[in-house]
Amino acid sequence: MQKPTIPKGMRDFGPIEMARRNYIFNTIKDVYAIYGFSQIETPTMENMNTLMGKYGEEGDRLLFRVLNSGDFFKGVSDEELIGRNTVLFSNKACEKGLRYDLTVPFARYVVNHFNELSMPFRRYQIQPVWRADRPQKGRYREFYQCDADIIGSDSLINEVELIQIIDDVFCRLGINVKIHLNNRKILAGMAEVAGEQDRIVDITVAIDKLEKIGLENVKKELREKGFSENTIQTLEPLITLDGSNNEKLERLGTLLQNSEIGQKGIEETRYILDRLDVVNIKNEILVDLSLARGLSYYTGAILEVKAKDVAMGSITGGGRYDNLTGIFGMQGLSGVGISFGADRIYDVMQELNLFPEEQLKNTQLMFVNFGEDETKFLLPVIAQIRKAGIRTELYPEPAKMKKQMAHADSLNIPFVALVGSEELEHKKINIKNMKTGEQNLLSVEEVITLIGI
Amino acid sequence: MQKPTIPKGMRDFGPIEMARRNYIFNTIKDVYAIYGFSQIETPTMENMNTLMGKYGEEGDRLLFRVLNSGDFFKGVSDEELIGRNTVLFSNKACEKGLRYDLTVPFARYVVNHFNELSMPFRRYQIQPVWRADRPQKGRYREFYQCDADIIGSDSLINEVELIQIIDDVFCRLGINVKIHLNNRKILAGMAEVAGEQDRIVDITVAIDKLEKIGLENVKKELREKGFSENTIQTLEPLITLDGSNNEKLERLGTLLQNSEIGQKGIEETRYILDRLDVVNIKNEILVDLSLARGLSYYTGAILEVKAKDVAMGSITGGGRYDNLTGIFGMQGLSGVGISFGADRIYDVMQELNLFPEEQLKNTQLMFVNFGEDETKFLLPVIAQIRKAGIRTELYPEPAKMKKQMAHADSLNIPFVALVGSEELEHKKINIKNMKTGEQNLLSVEEVITLIGI
Repeated sequence: MQKPTIPKGMRDFGPIEMARRNYIFNTIKDVYAIYGFSQIETPTMENMNTLMGKYGEEGDRLLFRVLNSGDFFKGVSDEELIGRNTVLFSNKACEKGLRYDLTVPFARYVVNHFNELSMPFRRYQIQPVWRADRPQKGRYREFYQCDADIIGSDSLINEVELIQIIDDVFCRLGINVKIHLNNRKILAGMAEVAGEQDRIVDITVAIDKLEKIGLENVKKELREKGFSENTIQTLEPLITLDGSNNEKLERLGTLLQNSEIGQKGIEETRYILDRLDVVNIKNEILVDLSLARGLSYYTGAILEVKAKDVAMGSITGGGRYDNLTGIFGMQGLSGVGISFGADRIYDVMQELNLFPEEQLKNTQLMFVNFGEDETKFLLPVIAQIRKAGIRTELYPEPAKMKKQMAHADSLNIPFVALVGSEELEHKKINIKNMKTGEQNLLSVEEVITLIGI
Repeated sequence: MQKPTIPKGMRDFGPIEMARRNYIFNTIKDVYAIYGFSQIETPTMENMNTLMGKYGEEGDRLLFRVLNSGDFFKGVSDEELIGRNTVLFSNKACEKGLRYDLTVPFARYVVNHFNELSMPFRRYQIQPVWRADRPQKGRYREFYQCDADIIGSDSLINEVELIQIIDDVFCRLGINVKIHLNNRKILAGMAEVAGEQDRIVDITVAIDKLEKIGLENVKKELREKGFSENTIQTLEPLITLDGSNNEKLERLGTLLQNSEIGQKGIEETRYILDRLDVVNIKNEILVDLSLARGLSYYTGAILEVKAKDVAMGSITGGGRYDNLTGIFGMQGLSGVGISFGADRIYDVMQELNLFPEEQLKNTQLMFVNFGEDETKFLLPVIAQIRKAGIRTELYPEPAKMKKQMAHADSLNIPFVALVGSEELEHKKINIKNMKTGEQNLLSVEEVITLIGI
C-alpha cells in the first residue's frame, strides 16, 4: 500500500507547531478583544458569484472550485462538453468555491446582517483562506489570515487604534518592528503635481529604489519609462525627501501645495501621528512615501509592518477603504482594517528564538506507571493535581522505566513523578525535575505548589 | 444588484454566537490540555484517495470534491464526457476533497509522521468538517468536530481518562449528563449465546425498545424479524436486564458464561467502572446494552453522552478501535477516542440558559466621544485601562449622545464612561453602570478596580 500524501502547498501542524501558532493567534485575539473587537466566522465555502470578479483576473483563476453535488453535468450541452472550455464548464458545474480572503466574505456578511449590526462595527476574523497559487518557500495554498476591521466610521481615531493594536501585538510577541505609514491621498497628490495621475506605481517604485541605486539611476529609469524632464524635476524633491516624519510632512506641505487631495492626505497623516504621540507607542513609526500596497482599494491611510531584526517581507498590512460593501450594492460604508501575517510572524519568531517555551501549554507533569496498585492510588491524586490546573498525564501502561522516561523526554515534559511501592506506603510523590535531574519527595499539595504557579 | 447568499447548510457566526461557541471550544481545549493532550491540525483538503472508501458508499457520495486547477479535462476522453458519468468524471477531474471527519485525517497524519511521534500519542483536534448531506434542522454541511484520541496503547486507563474528561467538560459547562457505556465484546457475546452473530443491531434495537413498547411487543418484533422462539427465550433475560451497573454485570456474567468474548467485555467494563469509582466522577454512568454506535469500527468500549435536562440526541460519543491506521497499511495501532458535538452542546446550553454572559469576552467599557479635546485626553487613559486587561472601546466619532448610548446598549456593554469638559477639568471619569443606571465619578485607578476584578 502506498503511503498517503497531502495536497501540495498544504500542511499538517503537529503539537509543537500548533502550540506556537496558538501562542501567536491567542496574542492577536487577546489584543483585538482588549480593543473591543468582536470575532465572527464565515463559511469555508462561498457561492462562486460572491467570489468571482472580486480579486481581478488572476484571483478568479486562483479560486478553488467545489464540484456541485448530484448531476453537475445538468445544464451543460454535449457540444460544450466536447469544447473542453474549463472556464465555461467550471462556471456551470461549480456553484461554490473556497474563501480566497476574509475581506470579501466580511463585506458579504455585513450586507447580509446589516440590520443586526450596530455601526461602527469592530470585527475580527481569524480563519484559513485558499489560493491555487504555485506553492513555493513561504507561500502556501492554505494559510490563515488574522483580520480586524472597523466599518461604518470615517474617524481617523480608528487608524490610530489599529496602529496601537499593531504596536501592542508586537510588544507582546517581543518582535521589534518598524511601522510604515503612507496615505493614498498623498500618493494621488504627488501624481497630480507631476501631471501623471495614472502613474502612482512608477513614482513609488522610484522612491523605493533611491537608496539602492542612487538618484541618477532613478532618474534614468524614469526617463526610460517616458517621464518628461520637467516631470522628473518636479518629482526629484519628492523622491529625495528625508528627515523626521514631521520634517517630511512639512516639506510635503510645500511641494503639494497645489494639490487639494495631497493636502488632505498630509493632514490625515499629521492627525494620526499626533494622536499616536499622546499614547506613546513603543515601536517606530515611519512616514514612507514608497509604500503603495492595495492601490486598487485603499483610499486613505496605507500601512505595512516590517520586523527590524530579521530580513523578511511585510508581516502586517492594512489601510482605509471607502466602499467595502459597494461590490454587493450597499454604498457608503467606509472602513479601515489590518491583517497580521501569521506564517511570516511564525518564521520571524522562530528565527529570533522568541517563543516562550513555558507558555506553550504542553504537559507539565507525567506520572510513571508502576502497575495496577499504584495506578489505583494515583488516579484520585492525579485528579486533584489536574483540578489545580496542572497539565498532567499518567503513562497508560506499566512499561519499562526507560521507555516511560524516554516518552517524557521526547515530549519535553519538565517534571516526572515516580510513585512506587515505597512512596505509596508513605503517600508521597517522588518528583524529578527533568532539566536539573533533581529529585524531591513531596506531598500532593507541595507538588501543586512546585509546578502550579 | 441581488443580495448575496451563502451556500445552503452553511452558517455565518456573529459576535454573540462566536463568543458562546468559543466558550464551549475553550472549555473543551482546556480540559484536553489538562489531561495532557496535544493539539494538531490537518489541511482542509485531503487527496481523494485518502478519503474514498473510508466512509462507506454513502460517505463517498457525500464528499465535497474540489475541481483540479488547470486543465481538468485532461485524461477524460470525449466519449467519457458525453457519457456524463458523474462518478467517473469527478474521479478524474478532482484529485482533492474536503475533510469528512477528523478520524481519517488523523490516521493519515499518524502514518505520515510516525517517526516524529512518541507512542502512546494523545492528540486533540478541533476543526470543521464538510458533508454534502441534505441540510435540515440541526444538521449542517459544515460543522466542527472536537476529537481527542489516544493511540498506541491498549490500556483501559485511557478509557477511564476519556470518561473523566467527559465528566470534567460537562461539569465546567454546567450540563447534567448521563454517560452511557457499552462494550462491543459484550454485544458480540450476546449475539454469540443467541447463535445470531450477525444480528447485533437487531438485538440492541430490541433492548432499546423494551421501555417504549414492552416485552411482548419486543418479542413480537423479534419473531417478525425471523428470530426463533428458542433464541428469543435466550435473549429475554438480556433484554430485560436491569438494576445497578454492578447487578447488570453480575447477571451478564452468568448469562454470557459460555462466551469468551462476552466475558472479556464484562471484565473490561468492570475495570473501567471500578477505576472511575476511585476518582469519583460527578455525572451518572450507566451500563447500557442498547448502545450500538460505530459497530463497523469499534472493538471495545462504546460510549455516548446524553443531556439529562433536555431532550436531544447524543451530545458526545466515542469508543475503542483496534486498527486506526490499518486503512493506510500500518497495522497494530490500537486507539480509543471521543468526540464532542459542539453544535448540539450549544443548543443544550442555549435551551438551559447556561452561557455565563460575563465570561463571553465582549467589550466591558465604552467611552463616549465628546470631541477632539476630550479624545486627546482620553487616548492615554484608555491605553492605561486596556493595559490592565479591560476590554475597552472609544466611540470613534462625537456623534449624538443618544446614538452613542444606543450603540453601547446594543452591544450589551456593561459600563459606559462619560468624560466631558467638567470631568476633563478634574481628571475624573464618570462611569455609568448600564444595568443599574448608577453613576460614579472615579479616578482611572478606581475604574480599573471597579471593572477589572
